[in-house]
Amino acid sequence: MSKHIVIIGLGLIGGSMARALRGFEDFDIIGVDVSQPTMRYALENEIVDEAEEDPVKALARGDLVFLCLHPQGIIDFMAEHRDHFKEGAMVTDVCGIKGSILEGAKVLPPTVSFVGGHPMAGTEFSGIQNSLVNMFHGAHYILVPNEQSHPDHLELMERVAEYVGCTDVVMTTAKEHDTIIAYTSQMMHIIAVSVCDDESLFHCQGFEGDSFRGCTRVAALDVPLWTQLFTLNADALGDALEKLESNIRLYRETIQSGDRETLIRKLTFSAARKRRMNRLEKATGAVGRDAQG
Amino acid sequence: MSKHIVIIGLGLIGGSMARALRGFEDFDIIGVDVSQPTMRYALENEIVDEAEEDPVKALARGDLVFLCLHPQGIIDFMAEHRDHFKEGAMVTDVCGIKGSILEGAKVLPPTVSFVGGHPMAGTEFSGIQNSLVNMFHGAHYILVPNEQSHPDHLELMERVAEYVGCTDVVMTTAKEHDTIIAYTSQMMHIIAVSVCDDESLFHCQGFEGDSFRGCTRVAALDVPLWTQLFTLNADALGDALEKLESNIRLYRETIQSGDRETLIRKLTFSAARKRRMNRLEKATGAVGRDAQG
Repeated sequence: MSKHIVIIGLGLIGGSMARALRGFEDFDIIGVDVSQPTMRYALENEIVDEAEEDPVKALARGDLVFLCLHPQGIIDFMAEHRDHFKEGAMVTDVCGIKGSILEGAKVLPPTVSFVGGHPMAGTEFSGIQNSLVNMFHGAHYILVPNEQSHPDHLELMERVAEYVGCTDVVMTTAKEHDTIIAYTSQMMHIIAVSVCDDESLFHCQGFEGDSFRGCTRVAALDVPLWTQLFTLNADALGDALEKLESNIRLYRETIQSGDRETLIRKLTFSAARKRRMNRLEKATGAVGRDAQG
Repeated sequence: MSKHIVIIGLGLIGGSMARALRGFEDFDIIGVDVSQPTMRYALENEIVDEAEEDPVKALARGDLVFLCLHPQGIIDFMAEHRDHFKEGAMVTDVCGIKGSILEGAKVLPPTVSFVGGHPMAGTEFSGIQNSLVNMFHGAHYILVPNEQSHPDHLELMERVAEYVGCTDVVMTTAKEHDTIIAYTSQMMHIIAVSVCDDESLFHCQGFEGDSFRGCTRVAALDVPLWTQLFTLNADALGDALEKLESNIRLYRETIQSGDRETLIRKLTFSAARKRRMNRLEKATGAVGRDAQG
């Protein structure tokens, strides 16, 4: 008898995870979503083996459960369904914040193993119709265990990460995850929306190059999702943004002062840091779906 | 007898222009560079038809001349060689600043036509070995004529733009170019280096996604080139950065205050602007070499 992966929430990431996990070991995939059109789309496009409206029925068969809702939705789902998970079930999530999720996972009974997860991939689109089988290719898969994480569960997640095409698995704590992600992900989204707030945006058509497209791509974000992510990580994100503002101001003041020597010194310093970072990335093989060579 | 395109400076952009212009109408391509290894590379890889060490000899045969040096180098070259251009020569440049270039072009004799040019493409690498035949695919080609621009020259540049794969030709003034480019290009580079100045950079390995790579890609910049570009456009760039700092600060203060309603309203506003921009870009077909669908 085959085992079952249950995916709660067939949006961009849940849908992509389902696509990427087809044929994984001896698991069949059961998709759960509140939207009938989404469920129909998932079945018609063979993204899942089964669609199940009732999460309670799905959870009763779920050996490995992916919670692919928005952060607050994941927290609420665990509280509401704490007693519906199968004994020995392995539960994980895919969202971009880990402190609140790990806190919320404390409601789960001791018969259930939990590991927080964050496969570092996404696009600026949402919904199952934008899901991609190769969404996770070249991405980092971050795992945050707690005292309730079964060793078998961590091993299974490592096989999941490899199967969906991730470059590596990075183990960390919720606090470290949230601090670093404020810098590497959330701040990029604040930069993108801030650039798009400039009054020149619609006058600049015909003058955009790849750097502009690369920086602003993620500005067309999913507002409810990112409102939650930013709000749940306000302290770390606020600190990261304060440092960014200061670094930009130092560059601006140098440029405005006409101090060419300092500008050369600063640019040399920053460019060397980026090149060193590129070498480190190259060494690990992480490239992302749209990164350049 | 065939006509001649002379490319002064076979770096990333000059080399890419030579590659992209092979076979254009009845022009042969003569490359000029101060570096012997670069000239040898250009010949061995058939990037140019001829390599010529002496710019004076090359200019004597140049019907269409591309100045592909750094900004100050272009200005100095025009002053030094003002009397060496062939009568009726059409001269253009490819650099990312136009006010100082158009000012510098005033030394050219009235027998020469000048049009400022800025094909909006590039990578974070430099040198002919990183040049690409498809560098300009999907890019905007900006043209800045002056009172010395011959109508035939503008028509020729439009055919050049189409031949090298650009999406469109955008005609503008030097002042407008420099103001908008401060926002769409120079500011993106200051953001990238400022992000890389964060002390967390080397601790964040394993936590970078596509948004981080997209935003910071251009930080590994060519320091002498960008020092010139920033310095020659200090006023416009300073203004653009002040607006950016203010927009980021407003987001930060909203997030830190915990004012969820304002955050939702702001994100909805910014994301809608970016989606509208995407629709405008889609309508013109400009995509860039690494833009996502």
